[in-house]
Amino acid sequence: MLFHVRMDVSVPHDMDPDARADLLAREKARAEEIQRSGKWPQLWRVVGEYANISIFDVDSTDELHDLLSSLPLFGFMRIKVTPLAHHPSKVD
Amino acid sequence: MLFHVRMDVSVPHDMDPDARADLLAREKARAEEIQRSGKWPQLWRVVGEYANISIFDVDSTDELHDLLSSLPLFGFMRIKVTPLAHHPSKVD
Amino acid sequence: MLFHVRMDVSVPHDMDPDARADLLAREKARAEEIQRSGKWPQLWRVVGEYANISIFDVDSTDELHDLLSSLPLFGFMRIKVTPLAHHPSKVD
Amino acid sequence: MLFHVRMDVSVPHDMDPDARADLLAREKARAEEIQRSGKWPQLWRVVGEYANISIFDVDSTDELHDLLSSLPLFGFMRIKVTPLAHHPSKVD
Amino acid sequence: MLFHVRMDVSVPHDMDPDARADLLAREKARAEEIQRSGKWPQLWRVVGEYANISIFDVDSTDELHDLLSSLPLFGFMRIKVTPLAHHPSKVD
Amino acid sequence: MLFHVRMDVSVPHDMDPDARADLLAREKARAEEIQRSGKWPQLWRVVGEYANISIFDVDSTDELHDLLSSLPLFGFMRIKVTPLAHHPSKVD
Amino acid sequence: MLFHVRMDVSVPHDMDPDARADLLAREKARAEEIQRSGKWPQLWRVVGEYANISIFDVDSTDELHDLLSSLPLFGFMRIKVTPLAHHPSKVD
Amino acid sequence: MLFHVRMDVSVPHDMDPDARADLLAREKARAEEIQRSGKWPQLWRVVGEYANISIFDVDSTDELHDLLSSLPLFGFMRIKVTPLAHHPSKVD
Amino acid sequence: MLFHVRMDVSVPHDMDPDARADLLAREKARAEEIQRSGKWPQLWRVVGEYANISIFDVDSTDELHDLLSSLPLFGFMRIKVTPLAHHPSKVD
Amino acid sequence: MLFHVRMDVSVPHDMDPDARADLLAREKARAEEIQRSGKWPQLWRVVGEYANISIFDVDSTDELHDLLSSLPLFGFMRIKVTPLAHHPSKVD
Repeated sequence: MLFHVRMDVSVPHDMDPDARADLLAREKARAEEIQRSGKWPQLWRVVGEYANISIFDVDSTDELHDLLSSLPLFGFMRIKVTPLAHHPSKVD
Repeated sequence: MLFHVRMDVSVPHDMDPDARADLLAREKARAEEIQRSGKWPQLWRVVGEYANISIFDVDSTDELHDLLSSLPLFGFMRIKVTPLAHHPSKVD
Repeated sequence: MLFHVRMDVSVPHDMDPDARADLLAREKARAEEIQRSGKWPQLWRVVGEYANISIFDVDSTDELHDLLSSLPLFGFMRIKVTPLAHHPSKVD
Repeated sequence: MLFHVRMDVSVPHDMDPDARADLLAREKARAEEIQRSGKWPQLWRVVGEYANISIFDVDSTDELHDLLSSLPLFGFMRIKVTPLAHHPSKVD
Repeated sequence: MLFHVRMDVSVPHDMDPDARADLLAREKARAEEIQRSGKWPQLWRVVGEYANISIFDVDSTDELHDLLSSLPLFGFMRIKVTPLAHHPSKVD
Repeated sequence: MLFHVRMDVSVPHDMDPDARADLLAREKARAEEIQRSGKWPQLWRVVGEYANISIFDVDSTDELHDLLSSLPLFGFMRIKVTPLAHHPSKVD
Repeated sequence: MLFHVRMDVSVPHDMDPDARADLLAREKARAEEIQRSGKWPQLWRVVGEYANISIFDVDSTDELHDLLSSLPLFGFMRIKVTPLAHHPSKVD
Repeated sequence: MLFHVRMDVSVPHDMDPDARADLLAREKARAEEIQRSGKWPQLWRVVGEYANISIFDVDSTDELHDLLSSLPLFGFMRIKVTPLAHHPSKVD
Repeated sequence: MLFHVRMDVSVPHDMDPDARADLLAREKARAEEIQRSGKWPQLWRVVGEYANISIFDVDSTDELHDLLSSLPLFGFMRIKVTPLAHHPSKVD
Repeated sequence: MLFHVRMDVSVPHDMDPDARADLLAREKARAEEIQRSGKWPQLWRVVGEYANISIFDVDSTDELHDLLSSLPLFGFMRIKVTPLAHHPSKVD
């Protein structure tokens, strides 16, 4: 079951540089871990923005919220989730 | 080169039923044709809306506009294009 | 799996009165049918508006889209779907 | 009498961790207390957001405001209240 | 129990003049009837707009929706309801 | 001459508690003073929000701005003023 | 007492050309009549839009609404009124 | 003196096809005429939309409004004008 | 050549009081200086807001930007510029 | 391939003045460097705002994101990218 997710990141400018570097390193590691599980099949950068557009493939809305809130940047992102369905004109 | 495209369809309620059926049949045929060319790799229905979210893979912005404006529903859609780039945390 | 759905209805003023009455009767019948199936456990009127706020309980996003698009008023509604998850402070 | 309430939480990132933990613990306790009184029958997490959608069942608007403003997080939330009424197509 | 209501009227320009005059006469009669019942204590015109801001005094949200939807212009208005509570600095 | 005023309050979380208490006490005193003068006949709390909806009765727009900007919270509020006129369907 | 008024005009494309010409002629005549009375001291076209920005100088909000609603185009305009006050840095 | 102009076109679907073709031909001719005068140095299509982004080079705001309102599509476009100035980091 | 300018001021609450007083004094002095030059013929306070609506009369967009950015409060204001043209119904 | 880019700058007021001066100097140097490469052919100031409107000429969306994110002010700007295509009425 697919969900479209847009994440806009906003990290405070006055965060301690080491804390920031650590936060971003943990975010990257966790993002890669979820991708390797197959639950996050698509991830793109929005050109010109500190934001991404992603597709998640999960079994339930609870699982999706658990994945998103497990991201170290969760408290620093505005996230918008849009449920997707099969399109009748999709060519497989 | 990838572009994220959202299309919201709005066909007038008072369109002649035959004209409408013809329009939608031609839209479906053209959408399948573009998909088969490899230029429209992803196409999803937005749940609860007469709308889709798509990914286009094109060589230029001119090509993208030509493809979108070749859709028979083009004059009946609100289309929003967002350019995408490679994400540094993407696992290939 | 729960989804929050808001539907805002907009039927053209110049629709033939009989066609309108028929449309609304079929909408009511289909809405009751879905509710009896257990897939639409909550349905409220928004005060002062021709709109409702609903909770759907479905197995997948495809099922949700099929249910919503089976409503006779589907083409006359603006629908907004919000996925819901379990809340950690919920008292059962 | 039912009201639909959406609460979006925004706690400052630089709040002292102990003060934050205490605030959240008191919020949880108060939220559970109100739920047990029967005044807050539904509470869901919005997927991907630090937000909830709730249904309150109260005798008056004054009572609703007293309940909402008694939440320890009240000063850190954007709250939007929508009055609900019985829907004529609701199956009981 | 008080509710703040804003109503924005939009009657189609091509409505038959007699039908329009009849509609507006019935609206005025019903609005005066509700006011005389004491349920609609305040009614103001928004300067420069075909809109009003009103205060309703009702016993329940169901009663408020019944009153608003009984207005002949109901299908031609965008209505926004805001629940009000006692203000702690109000001087009686 | 009546004006509809909505005030949304936003006091910084890190304000010194004593300064905050003093500010709010002075706001309450000034609000009561203006109400007693007859210039601020209606004042309601918006349910669930740190906001009020008010009616001011003044002789001029200059007088209204002087009253609003004399409130100790003026620098901490977003204020929206809407001019009101007599409504032709108002029952006196 | 000054008010800032923005008027955005939207006349239906399918209005009968003679009716339209008559409407616009009456609008122009009435606009000039109000200006000559001294109540409408400023009137500018917004570049690129079928809209104007105006300053009205009236004795009351009732008078302002009477003037605006006396315009033949009143039913075809979206009007936004903003009350103005003396500015303390204004050089006279 | 440069102005940034965005024009969004919206021609009614039920316009007579010949009238539409004539309108668009006259629009194209007038657009080319203005461009040849040097007053409209840049004109781009917005990808996926029936819209353009343009740069106009004019001597005054009156001249700009005269040019824009001389376009046959003027009554069918939403136009947004943004004044531009020299940028201090511009490399000539 | 006239431009409509709205300026919304937002000075941080925690600015040093002396720095603030100095900033506002310099703003007032510069605003009066520009007005005396004839380039800023109209300046009004928006009722209830720390904002003004102004008319500037300049020879070019570069001159307008130079004037606005010379204001000491420039970095603390959100400014919106709207180009104005002669209105055909203006009575001189 | 052309892209329309709007950048709105927002540098915190409490940034150290030397750090700010250094940041702006590096931004200017980098902006000039990109312009000299031919990738940033147009750059204008938006009148009255700390913002620019630009045209970028790049070979891919990845290249555009690399250029924009190489700007020292990247973390302090809200950037909006709009893809452009050839306009059929463009006079070359």
